[in-house]
Amino acid sequence: MMDLAALKIDIDGVAIEENPQLVQQKSRDFYWYSPVLKRRLEGVTAAIVARPKDEEELLLVIGACFRNDVPLTVRGSGTGNYGQAMPLAGGLVLDLSGMNRVKAVKAGTVVAEPGAILAEIDAAVRPSGQELRMFPSTYHTASIGGFIGGGSGGVGSIRWGGLRDAGNVVRVRMAAMDGSIPTVLDLTGPDIHRVSHAYGTTGVITEVEMPLAPAVDWVDAIVSFPTLEAAVRHGETLAGADGLLLKNVAVMDAAIAPFLKRHESYLAEGEAFVVLIAAAFAMTDVVALATRAGGRIMMRSDRLDEAERHRLPPAFELAWNHTTLRALRVDPSITYLQVLYPQPDIAGKVLTMAQLLGDEAPTHLEFVRFDGAVGCFGLPLVRYTSEERLDAIVKLHEDHGCPIFNPHRYTLEEGGMKQTDALQLAFKKRSDPKGLLNPGKMIAWDQPDFDYGRPYLFPSLSA
Amino acid sequence: MMDLAALKIDIDGVAIEENPQLVQQKSRDFYWYSPVLKRRLEGVTAAIVARPKDEEELLLVIGACFRNDVPLTVRGSGTGNYGQAMPLAGGLVLDLSGMNRVKAVKAGTVVAEPGAILAEIDAAVRPSGQELRMFPSTYHTASIGGFIGGGSGGVGSIRWGGLRDAGNVVRVRMAAMDGSIPTVLDLTGPDIHRVSHAYGTTGVITEVEMPLAPAVDWVDAIVSFPTLEAAVRHGETLAGADGLLLKNVAVMDAAIAPFLKRHESYLAEGEAFVVLIAAAFAMTDVVALATRAGGRIMMRSDRLDEAERHRLPPAFELAWNHTTLRALRVDPSITYLQVLYPQPDIAGKVLTMAQLLGDEAPTHLEFVRFDGAVGCFGLPLVRYTSEERLDAIVKLHEDHGCPIFNPHRYTLEEGGMKQTDALQLAFKKRSDPKGLLNPGKMIAWDQPDFDYGRPYLFPSLSA
Repeated sequence: MMDLAALKIDIDGVAIEENPQLVQQKSRDFYWYSPVLKRRLEGVTAAIVARPKDEEELLLVIGACFRNDVPLTVRGSGTGNYGQAMPLAGGLVLDLSGMNRVKAVKAGTVVAEPGAILAEIDAAVRPSGQELRMFPSTYHTASIGGFIGGGSGGVGSIRWGGLRDAGNVVRVRMAAMDGSIPTVLDLTGPDIHRVSHAYGTTGVITEVEMPLAPAVDWVDAIVSFPTLEAAVRHGETLAGADGLLLKNVAVMDAAIAPFLKRHESYLAEGEAFVVLIAAAFAMTDVVALATRAGGRIMMRSDRLDEAERHRLPPAFELAWNHTTLRALRVDPSITYLQVLYPQPDIAGKVLTMAQLLGDEAPTHLEFVRFDGAVGCFGLPLVRYTSEERLDAIVKLHEDHGCPIFNPHRYTLEEGGMKQTDALQLAFKKRSDPKGLLNPGKMIAWDQPDFDYGRPYLFPSLSA
Repeated sequence: MMDLAALKIDIDGVAIEENPQLVQQKSRDFYWYSPVLKRRLEGVTAAIVARPKDEEELLLVIGACFRNDVPLTVRGSGTGNYGQAMPLAGGLVLDLSGMNRVKAVKAGTVVAEPGAILAEIDAAVRPSGQELRMFPSTYHTASIGGFIGGGSGGVGSIRWGGLRDAGNVVRVRMAAMDGSIPTVLDLTGPDIHRVSHAYGTTGVITEVEMPLAPAVDWVDAIVSFPTLEAAVRHGETLAGADGLLLKNVAVMDAAIAPFLKRHESYLAEGEAFVVLIAAAFAMTDVVALATRAGGRIMMRSDRLDEAERHRLPPAFELAWNHTTLRALRVDPSITYLQVLYPQPDIAGKVLTMAQLLGDEAPTHLEFVRFDGAVGCFGLPLVRYTSEERLDAIVKLHEDHGCPIFNPHRYTLEEGGMKQTDALQLAFKKRSDPKGLLNPGKMIAWDQPDFDYGRPYLFPSLSA
């Protein structure tokens, strides 16, 4: 039985928070992107938040949770939007924002504590001429540990692929929930998958080593196209241009323009557009390719006056889930989906779905490298009416060969490929024998024979 | 009519060479890789070599050739092996080895004269933490202008694609052969294709700006596999690993090992092997992937003692055409082909050809990025018996869906896709109206209705 009183004695000296309002704040992430999760997870809260300042304190907290049977849910900055960091079983939220140091900058890699903010890591490595390979659009607030534990890729994935790809995480140091004195392991190579994108269900990341790319002068640009098809095909062309140093390529339907208020003077009414980030020295080629494809350059940040450049948010804050965020701010009824448009004929699949759904789900694409080829994720905005209709839209995609990573589910499996990650499950049996780490997020642990025909409901939650 | 006497007066002050033996040396490239070209081009020689020291002298020479109707064939270091730099119509060889300065190192690019040696460019940019994106295996001797004019890619193409891909050449400054005072143009974007891989038939490159990649600590490694199939599939896996920072991945049949004398202690008898170059910080992942695929790490340069590391040639000098060169040194009857194994089922095509040809053509593959996906070039060694048999082997590849870039032909078209490059042809009409630039290399110019069923023979050459 969970013994919170004993826990508090055991972790004496570590900063904690028990004020219910503040604890609830720290028990929430960006789950409200989803009206479904918003309803399901609204009441979720921990009993206590602990904020260790270093690995020693962190191990003390984990050991105390083990000893006193207290569920532990790890939190970086809480910018995930699958409810990853929400403590379904209550207990303790482990807030890692106090462990935010950049510990070493090397030639090619950086070593940091899990709570280090992505933008701050970049600031620390910049003097060495380096930068992170990839980051989510929440670059200015997200933590590196949270990105590895709950993210998958983002800005930069057009060159480097996703976090899951070999080489994109060099080393992860983690603590297991396996005793009063937790085991600490340094994972490299494929062993990293034991904790990456596991929502903290298999261990707590205490340190990471990430590969770096050269720091480049990046230019933000917007290219407008008369049709969605032309924009999609141009996005695919850019994604396949091996010699073009790009950091991001997003394609948006004309219907998305009204949500990007601060860029409205650079968006043509009724036109689809591509938002891209390219190396300054690649801009000649970017402009030439765009023009050939029938596009018009509406904005390039290297040609703006300084005041205007400072007024505009960076292009990556128009992309990935920031597109959704901007739409939500204008129209709270909007949500989104996460789609994979597989090869071959990416453009054909995108256009089919766009035609089937029309203005109910305006197209938003992010091009990436996926298994050594051009990959395309969709994050269509969805004008939400009901959970039933949302499920029907999910099914429509699946019926047309486009898998959905459903952001309206809080479990690893339902937000992913709907199958057990055998590696993570096997590891969890050793690293978390009591099942205290982020309970309710790994269906394979709670209910190995679960039927994915209906949504999973953790026992403590109502439908 | 060509007037050499008048030419010499016109270019007075420019360094020239007329000694027939030295002129013949400078009239040859690595054409002897091919027994066919060796026989056909043996007698080729210019009348005079001019070696300008700067652009002003270079323009003087071009203008004088125009005025006096002297054919001009441009030469970098003469390391091409398609006979690119051989003056079929005699006349003047323009030796650019005197124009070898690195003029500016910027953030992301380098500006150099065309005769600058690739390794020397890298040495010049290294203090800025940068290096060239790609180079041929003749890195230590080849010039940047020759690489752009006569090459296509090489070491580094596994990340960046080929020279033809947008972004891999930033700017080319060129002189046309269009008057006594030649027109000079700065080409950017797709216009660069007017002179890139044109063998100097459309203009003379006078300056280039090339994009740079970050300088990384590279490790050479050899991985051994029990079967050719396992090695090929591992090569393909590596090529598709978007997050792994690799510089080259070559796959070789067991039959190639005896030619790599200095590495013999790292090659297992009867085993196929992968020769790779990876970032030092990626080696953990490289080893993990290799082990999973059933490979054994036979050598990694970061684990060698210093004396041994200096004794061994770099891995890139085992790859691309250096593989052929090493084989030729041991067995002069060996030559090679250049094959494209297209998607899908690269491995299937490779293994089919290996089975059909057996020891007559041991497999040598170089993996690259090609149009945004994994690409695979073959440079199989060929135990040469006759031109007829060689042609039959070419046909066998083509019949199995594997195009050949035939290195036993000296024309652009026959060494490429056997079709007119309309862009280059149209440009040549303006840039070289008299047809003086490297005559005999562009069939579309000499004989627009040529039937590709038989080899092209420039009129001055015998079959």
